[in-house]
Amino acid sequence: MSPLPYEVSVREVGPRDGLQAEAPVSVGERVALIEALSGTGLHTIEAVSFVSEKAVPSMAGAADVMAKIQRNPDVGYVALVPNLRGAQAALEADVDGLTVTVSASETYSQKNTNRSIAESMTSVEEICDFVDEKLPIDVVVSCAFGSPYEGNITAEELGSLVRNIWDTGATAVTLADTTGMATPRRIDDVIDETGNDVGLHLHETRGTALVNAYAGLQRGIVRFDTSVGGLGGSPFAAGASGNLATEDLIHLLDDIGVATGVDLAALLDIDTTLAAMIGHPVASRIAAAGPRSRLADSP
Amino acid sequence: MSPLPYEVSVREVGPRDGLQAEAPVSVGERVALIEALSGTGLHTIEAVSFVSEKAVPSMAGAADVMAKIQRNPDVGYVALVPNLRGAQAALEADVDGLTVTVSASETYSQKNTNRSIAESMTSVEEICDFVDEKLPIDVVVSCAFGSPYEGNITAEELGSLVRNIWDTGATAVTLADTTGMATPRRIDDVIDETGNDVGLHLHETRGTALVNAYAGLQRGIVRFDTSVGGLGGSPFAAGASGNLATEDLIHLLDDIGVATGVDLAALLDIDTTLAAMIGHPVASRIAAAGPRSRLADSP
Repeated sequence: MSPLPYEVSVREVGPRDGLQAEAPVSVGERVALIEALSGTGLHTIEAVSFVSEKAVPSMAGAADVMAKIQRNPDVGYVALVPNLRGAQAALEADVDGLTVTVSASETYSQKNTNRSIAESMTSVEEICDFVDEKLPIDVVVSCAFGSPYEGNITAEELGSLVRNIWDTGATAVTLADTTGMATPRRIDDVIDETGNDVGLHLHETRGTALVNAYAGLQRGIVRFDTSVGGLGGSPFAAGASGNLATEDLIHLLDDIGVATGVDLAALLDIDTTLAAMIGHPVASRIAAAGPRSRLADSP
Repeated sequence: MSPLPYEVSVREVGPRDGLQAEAPVSVGERVALIEALSGTGLHTIEAVSFVSEKAVPSMAGAADVMAKIQRNPDVGYVALVPNLRGAQAALEADVDGLTVTVSASETYSQKNTNRSIAESMTSVEEICDFVDEKLPIDVVVSCAFGSPYEGNITAEELGSLVRNIWDTGATAVTLADTTGMATPRRIDDVIDETGNDVGLHLHETRGTALVNAYAGLQRGIVRFDTSVGGLGGSPFAAGASGNLATEDLIHLLDDIGVATGVDLAALLDIDTTLAAMIGHPVASRIAAAGPRSRLADSP
């Protein structure tokens, strides 16, 4: 077994990336979820998105959510922003950091944001200039390991895009396996090009999120995005296509001796409320099966 | 990335371990499934089980199945046998090999087979004596990475059991993660004790089958059990608790450059028939999402 990092940090994206894919829930429920997550030992929560309320009704009321949460001083509450206007609104709402997305796939970029990759990069530059180092900005690269439109994205192409992102003044870069096309070999090839000072945002589309996380750990990756319950997939296919579930990663890391500071039991407590909130079971395997320490005679 | 084996062999257990968990299907359908699997490049298929037809109605007619399959000379058709009488029946049916199970968990052994571990070991010895090296005998150790009754099984306990199994004259030993309690660290600890001349039979209960397979590969494991479609889990929770799906392992191995000789497209063709046969979707993620090469505009 290759040596693994002693500890890693986990950014919880459920309240934003997760709930965005669900039918809208109330501001109060979103606030309650964020506050519950704030008590699990997580240090970063992607809480809201300052996008068009018309285009993404489930993310409406971002400023309201930010104003209402009882903040835990040990937690950074970050917001996804699609453009300069979103960044301005986020700063007014006193967020602790921003995430911005750029796609590695030209077609995905056009279809998902109606912008070219180059236009997205210009937007990142504008946001970085505006924020002027007052807040950390993490640029999340979608389709980093392949695109459902163009197919493979080479490690060299991706490496070039990531270097351009660093040049904008971004404080972090996260590689997202948006449609589950990564494998350990591709994780490895990409890290050869980008270095291991990137985060990984992995999806379960093909059941490979944990094996890819493990491959990343073996290369020294220390930042992971996860979503409580695995929120963010199709509500009709439990476990089939969502984000890597926070519980599932924490459960694995706990057993292989990689510290996160996150309390698995506290996360599992949240799952019950969460399933009721979204109206269907969560996709997390650990939520369904329980941790490996749960014996047959346990309650 | 640690060096990986150049090639591995995959034993398909769907027709036995998989269908055993489903409502009974006809002998003709089982024969058709086995014959279809025989054409995918798989070299070993656990085809039948010579158990009590009353206790396991879905496995009734084992001799009939064996008599009816059109055998591919490149494929070994093996049978699970619970005892000497089963072994006698299997030899009469002209199988190419036997699998026998022993549990690493005393309580699981009692609950599942109504026998102690020691009694199971005696049965293995009887079978090995009877077979007298005429056929290969693979002893599959259930609960090798933990038990839902006793909790953890230490690597030392397991190593001791595995040495006793080799002493019976078994030709192979396979470690089964029956309830999904393995993690890469436990795979590693166990292989330290058993050596890497064992097979791995992994389950998706906690979504860890692929990461555990990968950890095994990195230690030089070259034999894996899988089940077409992931057959063998609960029919009510797609993907939630079954065997590692053959397609899902082959898809990963193809992309990381580990040869199996198995044709992924041929396996995916089988899934359609299989879902109709069992009356519900299969659990395989690749069956659901398609291989990573399937683009958005593809049919």
